[in-house]
Amino acid sequence: MASLARLPGVGERTATRYAFFLLAQAPTLAAELGESLSGLHTAVRHCAQCHNLATAERCELCLDPRRDASRLCVVEGLPELIAIERTGEFNGHYHVLHGTLSPVRGIGPEALKLPSLLERVTAQSVTEVILATNADVEGEATAMYVARLLHRLPQVAVSRLATGVPMGGDLEFVDQGTLARAVRDRRAL
Amino acid sequence: MASLARLPGVGERTATRYAFFLLAQAPTLAAELGESLSGLHTAVRHCAQCHNLATAERCELCLDPRRDASRLCVVEGLPELIAIERTGEFNGHYHVLHGTLSPVRGIGPEALKLPSLLERVTAQSVTEVILATNADVEGEATAMYVARLLHRLPQVAVSRLATGVPMGGDLEFVDQGTLARAVRDRRAL
Repeated sequence: MASLARLPGVGERTATRYAFFLLAQAPTLAAELGESLSGLHTAVRHCAQCHNLATAERCELCLDPRRDASRLCVVEGLPELIAIERTGEFNGHYHVLHGTLSPVRGIGPEALKLPSLLERVTAQSVTEVILATNADVEGEATAMYVARLLHRLPQVAVSRLATGVPMGGDLEFVDQGTLARAVRDRRAL
Repeated sequence: MASLARLPGVGERTATRYAFFLLAQAPTLAAELGESLSGLHTAVRHCAQCHNLATAERCELCLDPRRDASRLCVVEGLPELIAIERTGEFNGHYHVLHGTLSPVRGIGPEALKLPSLLERVTAQSVTEVILATNADVEGEATAMYVARLLHRLPQVAVSRLATGVPMGGDLEFVDQGTLARAVRDRRAL
């Protein structure tokens, strides 16, 4: 019960509820749960290619032959990968940086999965790299840094997610910076 | 007091407070206020050129010689004009439609200030029209409709505000439609 209470958002009361629930079920459930949790760190690892979560050497996305390996989408972490995957707009491979540059928090380029990114782009026939880091200060700085690295490599197009008015947005309530950017980045119709 | 209570967000209590405040001041304040309110509809009208609010035949923006008359920004209403003006990113002239197409509410093209827009673009040397309607369904439909009208005229570039991830936005919390659009509309770096 003490270890259950260490899960995020789980306090002593919820932990007790979980424990009583498990006690009321057949002993196999608790045994199964215990086994999967014990095996978690050996079963789940990072994909050797894109650093996504994987249960094998490579993740499911990297192994999927229907996906276009010539396009990479660079994301900060797993929640961003999942968000983009959910849109259904991207059918290429990912590259998870596992962080962003942050001088304030002392996070430099060496903390990010950058060498393997450059290696992938150089070794494989990658034609486009989409920098899909967040639109905040650290995400923008990271995108600019990675873009500079990639521009040194020949024949790879580098792009960035569009910034602008969110869909359904009323201009009256969009923040000034975003609206300014939307005017600057306007697209031809 | 009864007429004060008809202002938006002003109930009987607030109206009473206003009235007592005015009674406690010198009579000139109430007289001045009364006079400006009486004169409101004769003093403020719509600019004959862009339909912005104006105190003369043309509004201050249309009369400002430092503004670029070859670029028009089409907006739904005054709040949107003010929002874009506040960004400082646009130095051209505006055109206020005073509405959006809305079949549901029975608002068709004839309700919008469209003839004067086409006239301006045809008669003056307008090189670009930025369609800055809102990013909601009605705003998008209006933009598409106006774009079609403008495409019939020669030599005018038609553009639309960028849609995408708002600045400072975390991809994890951006809605799916906006993120999909941001991926599709990604820009080269």
